[in-house]
Amino acid sequence: MASNAGKNPNDLSRRQLFLGGAVAGVGAVAAVAADHALNAAPMAPGAAAPLNGTVTIPFHGAHQSGIDSPPTAHATFIALDLREGIGREELQAMMRLLSDDAARLAQGVNPLADTEPELSLVPARLTITFGFGPRLVDRAGTDRAPRSWLRPLPAFKVDRLEQAWSDGDLLLQVSSDDPLTVAHATRMLLKDARRFATVRWTQKGFRRAHGSEATGTTMRNLFGQIDGTTNPKLGTADLESVVWIDDKSWLAGGTSMVMRRIDMNVDKWDRLDRPGRELAVGRRLDNGAPLTGTREQDEPDFNHTTTVGFPTIPEFSHIRRARSDATHERIFRRSYNYDDAPSDPSMISNTGLVFISFQADIDTQFVPIQRRLDDLDLLNEWTTPVGSAVFAIPPGCEKGGYIGETLLA
Amino acid sequence: MASNAGKNPNDLSRRQLFLGGAVAGVGAVAAVAADHALNAAPMAPGAAAPLNGTVTIPFHGAHQSGIDSPPTAHATFIALDLREGIGREELQAMMRLLSDDAARLAQGVNPLADTEPELSLVPARLTITFGFGPRLVDRAGTDRAPRSWLRPLPAFKVDRLEQAWSDGDLLLQVSSDDPLTVAHATRMLLKDARRFATVRWTQKGFRRAHGSEATGTTMRNLFGQIDGTTNPKLGTADLESVVWIDDKSWLAGGTSMVMRRIDMNVDKWDRLDRPGRELAVGRRLDNGAPLTGTREQDEPDFNHTTTVGFPTIPEFSHIRRARSDATHERIFRRSYNYDDAPSDPSMISNTGLVFISFQADIDTQFVPIQRRLDDLDLLNEWTTPVGSAVFAIPPGCEKGGYIGETLLA
Repeated sequence: MASNAGKNPNDLSRRQLFLGGAVAGVGAVAAVAADHALNAAPMAPGAAAPLNGTVTIPFHGAHQSGIDSPPTAHATFIALDLREGIGREELQAMMRLLSDDAARLAQGVNPLADTEPELSLVPARLTITFGFGPRLVDRAGTDRAPRSWLRPLPAFKVDRLEQAWSDGDLLLQVSSDDPLTVAHATRMLLKDARRFATVRWTQKGFRRAHGSEATGTTMRNLFGQIDGTTNPKLGTADLESVVWIDDKSWLAGGTSMVMRRIDMNVDKWDRLDRPGRELAVGRRLDNGAPLTGTREQDEPDFNHTTTVGFPTIPEFSHIRRARSDATHERIFRRSYNYDDAPSDPSMISNTGLVFISFQADIDTQFVPIQRRLDDLDLLNEWTTPVGSAVFAIPPGCEKGGYIGETLLA
Repeated sequence: MASNAGKNPNDLSRRQLFLGGAVAGVGAVAAVAADHALNAAPMAPGAAAPLNGTVTIPFHGAHQSGIDSPPTAHATFIALDLREGIGREELQAMMRLLSDDAARLAQGVNPLADTEPELSLVPARLTITFGFGPRLVDRAGTDRAPRSWLRPLPAFKVDRLEQAWSDGDLLLQVSSDDPLTVAHATRMLLKDARRFATVRWTQKGFRRAHGSEATGTTMRNLFGQIDGTTNPKLGTADLESVVWIDDKSWLAGGTSMVMRRIDMNVDKWDRLDRPGRELAVGRRLDNGAPLTGTREQDEPDFNHTTTVGFPTIPEFSHIRRARSDATHERIFRRSYNYDDAPSDPSMISNTGLVFISFQADIDTQFVPIQRRLDDLDLLNEWTTPVGSAVFAIPPGCEKGGYIGETLLA
């Protein structure tokens, strides 16, 4: 558990947001850019709030960034396959390079090989998170054994997995409130990674833009559902115990990541009326309250029955099936919506969720929940997992170090 | 010319931004949502600035929205092909329906058939702009003749056009600072359009996020260039004369739109050094100043020569070739970046520009500029037009009317 974890749920967790950090100490390029901003686009007199573009989240620390901070508006997820012949030495070189790029970009500083340095000056809460797939850990060739959970998830009946959206050796999660920042950072990383690896898949996700809604509003997905109410809260000991691995292994201070690409059949969902939708989820659509409550954060009462004796929150509802009596069966979700161009001209939508969860142990925390949902969850009628991947998320590193050093050094 | 056009370049043009409009007068759904927001995510005490999510741009007016207002962070462009048998009567019905949807969505009000009404409550400067392709105007079957310019552009040597990115009967430009809003509005419109038309292509673009940079900062493209310095300024008579059609036809108060999908070969661009890049454009990369000046807005001096007698801004540079001595050869650009997943696993980027220009007359304003760039523009070495489309943009409408009524009624 990180020593400086806040206990206040309004605390932005251990990673403080540094305002204005992007402009301070960036060197010549930033100085010119700041000068330019002054010349070309003066802020209104009296304007006090710093631009969100200048807000930074530290890259260095006990844990990797991009997990226990408020989700950004945009995230791009890229899985890479290692090239033939890449062993431990090359993995070290790759992770040193990528960690250095990520640390600079997160501060709003251009990486050394940046050919468009001005595009690096707007971090907008940029974080870059690295995950290791099973084959990368094998290639490291150490005796620091991989975890039992570092393998493809067990097969679920609902799965219709496509290889084009599944697995991978190295995961990059590039997350920022600014889509141009995500595009530039992604390209910088891939330019430095391409000697070592090729792109296996790319998934782009979004949530509400910065400034669209009050801070802390729970996300709605493209079914219109409020999604994430029961998530552990940022900055709490609860989140720390759900997410971080607390042992003596190379993953101490790290976590695991499950990615599921979940197609949402919005055309079929359209044919379900509002009461039907609320029964499928177990929550009201308007404010996300459980069907037995009035407010989003109310605890659902699964024993409550209707006047004719049926459970008010049906047995087949999503929230009933997702809930366990076993207190360790909890995960921390940080999902993003996707809405891609349909490949079939008869379709008007290609929509879904890049489901992301972090948990200390996939086998004991994620899998039991997913098994219950696989057995019975009315939402399965409208959702189909089409991609699946599992990554070990190494701990963070200090300045001068690199992500993965506990495995590779 | 609109009667209430401001002459101050800092004026946000004739379309005032209405703060808080999304919450006022939205009816039951919004009331519940506002209540929800109050319960679930109270704003910090003393917070004064309205959320950008509540800012609206009026749909009704002399001109369509989404043209003479500051560009939003996101825009999705969809071209539709009319189904067989769609004539004037069906076009009327379609445009009535889509105009009503667009007017409601722009106010943060859910359209009548909205099955996820809560997703409509965050307009974030949403605008929806409609364009008519040549075939739609033919299908209208009136004697209000189409313009000479309402046809595919003349062929240019640089073109490598793909049908999958070109032409179309009806264009939807869905523009907002919030990507979830764009996704929901797009789906609402396509659900109502699908009886009449099928999707031909979808192009998604982005610029800097709201709040990333000071208002009025000129966009950088993914080559890192500042792009749009010489654009007519919002809220000026200059912009009005460049953009709006001023005659007695069905397009009075309307304009024309050129869309060019321009692939940018960023891998090849990487091999060009910084001085070479600046000569190709004719501007400094750091602050966008012409090579003969020090600040972005400085006028380029095309007669200035280096000590050895060569023009300081080369003849082959982009800004030299784009500039005409004919004062009417000007256009108003409102382009967006794109960065899609590469289709070829050996590539790491699929990047470019959804070039958009509005002008009263394509033949006399756009084509001469494009011809000069086609003949000689060093940037052509790194850029390739892969899509091209032309649309007539009908004037705006008042409440109770619909876009296209001057042609279809």
